[in-house]
Amino acid sequence: MDNPKLRAFLPVFYLVWSDDLLTQKELGTLSDFISSQKWLTGDEQETLLSNVDISAPPSRQQLAKWKQEIQKSMQANPEATGIFDLSVWLANNDEAITGLKPVFAKLENDLGILGDEIITNFKGHTKTVTSETHTVSSFDIKKLTAILDGPQSLIIRKVKLLLTRKEFAYETSTDTRVYREKVYEWCKILAKENLGNMAYPREYGGGGNMADYFAIMETLSYHDLSLVIKFGVQFGLWGMSVQSLGTQKHHSKYLADIGSLKLPGCFAMTETNHGSNVKGIETTATYDQENKTFVVHTPHLDARKEYIGNAAMHGQMATVFAKLIIKGKDYGVNAFIVSLRDSNGNVQPGVTIGDCGHKMGLNGVDNGTIIFDRVIIPKENMLDRFAAVNEAGEFESPIPSDNRRFFTMLGTLVGGRIGIPRSALSAAKSGLAIAVRYSDQRRQFGPEGGSEVPILNYRMHQRRLMPLLARTYAIHFGLQYLTRRYLNKTDADMQEIEALAAGMKSYSTWSTRDVLQECREACGGKGYLSENRINALKNDTEIYTTFEGDNTVLMQLVAKNRLAEFRKAFGQMNAMGMISYVYENAKTALAEKNPIVTRKTDDAHLLDQVFHLHALEHREKTTLASAARRLKKLIDSGLDSYDAFNVTQHQMVDVARAWLDRIIFEQFQIAVKKIDDQNVRAALTRLQQLFALSVIEQNKGWFLEDGYMEAVKTKAIRKMVNQLCWDIRKDAVPLVDAFDIPDTCLSAPIAF
Amino acid sequence: MDNPKLRAFLPVFYLVWSDDLLTQKELGTLSDFISSQKWLTGDEQETLLSNVDISAPPSRQQLAKWKQEIQKSMQANPEATGIFDLSVWLANNDEAITGLKPVFAKLENDLGILGDEIITNFKGHTKTVTSETHTVSSFDIKKLTAILDGPQSLIIRKVKLLLTRKEFAYETSTDTRVYREKVYEWCKILAKENLGNMAYPREYGGGGNMADYFAIMETLSYHDLSLVIKFGVQFGLWGMSVQSLGTQKHHSKYLADIGSLKLPGCFAMTETNHGSNVKGIETTATYDQENKTFVVHTPHLDARKEYIGNAAMHGQMATVFAKLIIKGKDYGVNAFIVSLRDSNGNVQPGVTIGDCGHKMGLNGVDNGTIIFDRVIIPKENMLDRFAAVNEAGEFESPIPSDNRRFFTMLGTLVGGRIGIPRSALSAAKSGLAIAVRYSDQRRQFGPEGGSEVPILNYRMHQRRLMPLLARTYAIHFGLQYLTRRYLNKTDADMQEIEALAAGMKSYSTWSTRDVLQECREACGGKGYLSENRINALKNDTEIYTTFEGDNTVLMQLVAKNRLAEFRKAFGQMNAMGMISYVYENAKTALAEKNPIVTRKTDDAHLLDQVFHLHALEHREKTTLASAARRLKKLIDSGLDSYDAFNVTQHQMVDVARAWLDRIIFEQFQIAVKKIDDQNVRAALTRLQQLFALSVIEQNKGWFLEDGYMEAVKTKAIRKMVNQLCWDIRKDAVPLVDAFDIPDTCLSAPIAF
Repeated sequence: MDNPKLRAFLPVFYLVWSDDLLTQKELGTLSDFISSQKWLTGDEQETLLSNVDISAPPSRQQLAKWKQEIQKSMQANPEATGIFDLSVWLANNDEAITGLKPVFAKLENDLGILGDEIITNFKGHTKTVTSETHTVSSFDIKKLTAILDGPQSLIIRKVKLLLTRKEFAYETSTDTRVYREKVYEWCKILAKENLGNMAYPREYGGGGNMADYFAIMETLSYHDLSLVIKFGVQFGLWGMSVQSLGTQKHHSKYLADIGSLKLPGCFAMTETNHGSNVKGIETTATYDQENKTFVVHTPHLDARKEYIGNAAMHGQMATVFAKLIIKGKDYGVNAFIVSLRDSNGNVQPGVTIGDCGHKMGLNGVDNGTIIFDRVIIPKENMLDRFAAVNEAGEFESPIPSDNRRFFTMLGTLVGGRIGIPRSALSAAKSGLAIAVRYSDQRRQFGPEGGSEVPILNYRMHQRRLMPLLARTYAIHFGLQYLTRRYLNKTDADMQEIEALAAGMKSYSTWSTRDVLQECREACGGKGYLSENRINALKNDTEIYTTFEGDNTVLMQLVAKNRLAEFRKAFGQMNAMGMISYVYENAKTALAEKNPIVTRKTDDAHLLDQVFHLHALEHREKTTLASAARRLKKLIDSGLDSYDAFNVTQHQMVDVARAWLDRIIFEQFQIAVKKIDDQNVRAALTRLQQLFALSVIEQNKGWFLEDGYMEAVKTKAIRKMVNQLCWDIRKDAVPLVDAFDIPDTCLSAPIAF
Repeated sequence: MDNPKLRAFLPVFYLVWSDDLLTQKELGTLSDFISSQKWLTGDEQETLLSNVDISAPPSRQQLAKWKQEIQKSMQANPEATGIFDLSVWLANNDEAITGLKPVFAKLENDLGILGDEIITNFKGHTKTVTSETHTVSSFDIKKLTAILDGPQSLIIRKVKLLLTRKEFAYETSTDTRVYREKVYEWCKILAKENLGNMAYPREYGGGGNMADYFAIMETLSYHDLSLVIKFGVQFGLWGMSVQSLGTQKHHSKYLADIGSLKLPGCFAMTETNHGSNVKGIETTATYDQENKTFVVHTPHLDARKEYIGNAAMHGQMATVFAKLIIKGKDYGVNAFIVSLRDSNGNVQPGVTIGDCGHKMGLNGVDNGTIIFDRVIIPKENMLDRFAAVNEAGEFESPIPSDNRRFFTMLGTLVGGRIGIPRSALSAAKSGLAIAVRYSDQRRQFGPEGGSEVPILNYRMHQRRLMPLLARTYAIHFGLQYLTRRYLNKTDADMQEIEALAAGMKSYSTWSTRDVLQECREACGGKGYLSENRINALKNDTEIYTTFEGDNTVLMQLVAKNRLAEFRKAFGQMNAMGMISYVYENAKTALAEKNPIVTRKTDDAHLLDQVFHLHALEHREKTTLASAARRLKKLIDSGLDSYDAFNVTQHQMVDVARAWLDRIIFEQFQIAVKKIDDQNVRAALTRLQQLFALSVIEQNKGWFLEDGYMEAVKTKAIRKMVNQLCWDIRKDAVPLVDAFDIPDTCLSAPIAF
């Protein structure tokens, strides 16, 4: 095609034949166009039409030649803004063409060609913003690690060092028996290093250091999670139930041997029929005054103990929760020490052990079922800190209500609800370390003519991982706060701490579920291979949302605690009470609800932590008041309170979540403020802003419904979340490096 | 306490001592209150104070006696609305008491006692709305099954019957070798039953029935998913690549043996360095004109084929994708048949096979890596339907663009993106069948004094499962539609079908991920035991979101297709184009945006399917137009188009999702309309309403930002979603029974 007029068609021809989206319809559109152009002669039309015949496509060489010509025209016209500019040049500025801009524009439209997009593709820019972004360490990683580890850094370092010993190489056998024995051996090493008994009193060989115990659980969780759970069952559940529910006679008899793992044991609470509603367990311990014994019995198969860690293989004793029966009268749930096996591992008479078999994860833990057939235990085996049977065979307790006594007993075991969310968080950190490092190296796609780009440079990939990284940091500081509150607990704030532990347990374990799910997908096929450990991390922590209290049930408890606090503060929910509540507590909120604030979208405001905290507080208070009001209204309307609570369950979860969002943000903020190093503080401040804005974005429906924000603001927040993800991406690798997870623990080949 | 005045305190005393939330602070509040009451004598105050001394709590018997008295007072005052009414009765209407209502009310407030809630607890209603709800089959299950199975019911029944044979008992060994062999044996049985070759032409022994082939994949997916994938690799990927990319000489040589499983093979496309961006694979097939052969070669380790199903153990041949090189010139990606092993299973010279090892799931499939070291294959092994090397050693193709040719080749393999989402949906159905049936039987908690209640009666539990059940039904009909479109495809609508398949693949597999995650949690500890199969279902389908195209990448493709269609329809995004678009396509939407509609909340409107469809269409069109506008703006502002697409990636996913939501709803609606049986139609109509309103609720932030709805309406929608969940709960078990999953396939003990 030497005819200049015809050469004007080269860009269009090239595009329709090379475009992925070419269809017969497009060719038809092009043919019709050519045939209808009066400024072309019949011969010219014919020549052109021969180039759009689907039965005789241009050759590969032809296509390559067209491309060359177009590129030449691009070089000659660097300012070209559309393909018509190229056509004019290719046609040597032929007068027949120059006036045809609207005609060609219509053709492009009809063909669905986006001219300027194509122009930039032809330019073959290899230096795009997307491809230029890469990791830049804006802060000293070691300093951040020191802040994360805090006062526990010594014990953390000790545990990490231990885990890098070659005995702790991961077990890769899929044989459950092999795996269980390996985990048991690991536990013995930890016991020998005096890590298991860290929280027990010094007089029984312990370390007397609960803070270190939590740090041990957390650090072990960078390694195999079966190990953590086996460790937690033995030293936490079994040992601490003896410590917390028993008295001195039990401590001196058992604690040293539990701490050294000479006496492996179980925590036998859950039954097949009663998991969440554990108050309803049916195992009985019937007192026999004549022999001064209890008879422990499983009344029917579905009252068997189930999921009991350490039961299937190694446990020799168990803290068994059972209804105490004296002279035919039920005195509620109490705890008893029952022998399951002798020291040679032979199961005791009357005890039947089952194996829970293969599980989704944690297959290094020997979960089992236990059935008691009138097993007789001595009187002193009752853990009698909160209730006892006296010499006369009468029940005695300082807590008259069976219900309250049981919950008081459970309250002493709340430490488990701190260990578990901290363990879960470590698993999330491992997942993020693997996924972020891989995404920083893995390249896929790229600009036309340029090399491929790290997938972490893509907006969606950042959107998937950066908010979760921010949330993980936020939860870290939230859990530090919970731990401090627990270590400094008094009777007066015990209820709040229990609610906080229940809430943080749910918040952290659900977050870990989300993080590991996203990490699996973000690592694609590599994330599916067991060698990269996301498999184990995800499946092992999967049950964390269920054990130590089902998350959804716990969130209801948290909400009920919030409602109780609310009532104490404001009394019954009459109209005046409500109004004064809203007025007293939401003065700021009311002020913020003026249109200037609800529509405020400047960067400084959106990044302002005062705005973040106010928004989260407003949501916390409003959801609580609204749930209380709704409940009251339902009950007033004659609904049974049980039904009323059921109807509002969904709102209750919102109440709990809003409370936790605020607390976690607040604690993150307090922690960041204390940081001296400017660079570390700046990096964490970005994460804190992203955490707050992500929470707000996730709940934008609520904020819009409430009127606290208008659309212009929630849209601006979305943009700001994107921008923060983009900014944090550069720091992402250093931020996961700061978790300081030992390489031998992380182990995933894709993370190195 | 016989003094009537003092007896007025019994309810309060009972409550503070029995309440779970009693704190020292409350006892203090109560003591202060007693001490400050002038109408009590000093002696009376002392008596009362002795009952609120934490160091001398009342005995258990005392507490029981108080409770009895209160219950007596309840019986006498069935109309009591607060605990003060009981106090008056207990005090024998003592005049000192009757006037104290405000005083006692304040005390209750200060203690945080919610009087009327407690009253209903004392009443011990055992018949609450929550506890009375139970399964009621409102329709004929068999009729619904027939509708779901449709024209494929015969083959579905055949496959189900086959799966119940004892050879198909699940393999429980954790030994990967054992499991892989079992799956292979199963595949042989299916081949023998002529299920594998169902889609191949009759002249090669096949069934010539693609519709039945899809139904087979779907039905097999009620059983072990490793079986389905192994089956799909052999008969779908391997066989259909030969069928679709090869010509008659390949068909006659291979198809019969592939269909009978005499010739097990692989589909070797993905490489370590190129998964999503498969166009960039680096394996080469260099043509040798002298010998009329190709030399297949892996240039470096990261260009090895990876994740290849059937490679590690059983595959004898493979369709290998490689760049064709002729005389040093690269002709793009083409496909070649390469022998991996001889018929005795010995690996061929030059071929190195690796094993992907243990995976998160699908361990019955032998995924492997393949490295080629200058492997020589005959010229006829090029699958030459779309490109060939002629006798003169020159490249020939009817499709000049390498890019377009490659995507045309991929287009012929789009069937995989129909088989996979249908398989995923079956897994979701299995999960729901297990979780719904278990939740209908599992009882936990209950009203005061009543028996425990099925957990499916709880609002949160309904909220977790019912919308997913509705979504699963919706996707079923969406996938039926996709299948029909595919089976009746023409060249003209191929692009739309490809976009639809890519979108439905993502939509369905993500939904399955969500469904199975929720089912696991909804089944608590039981959901963690492998025997209940949620483990296998979740972990096996986990990779579905990655293979056959990473979902996030596919959603970008879908969005790009939508944008292209949009451009074709409306041309370049100038202001007039946009306005006319909005005007032409959203006339109704504009009408709906008047305040009467945006605030309309009556039940009839909220349940109206015209409203649902309009809302979903409005979101579809608006997100699309807005993404197009944003892209145009970014490019106009000088951003490279590659960068511009990156910036808008997040919006692109919304565009794709909104399109799919609308299509799936529409197809659900069309399918339901056709149902004759009134009861079945009514049951499915509720699901369809729940599906639409759930989608709207999930996107309420968007609808509020857009102004399509106001807060009053989105709040009403939340309530309606709750109501629909409640209504559908009664039908839930019949609705999962209608999936008609064979008991031997479902297998989970908790489902029976």
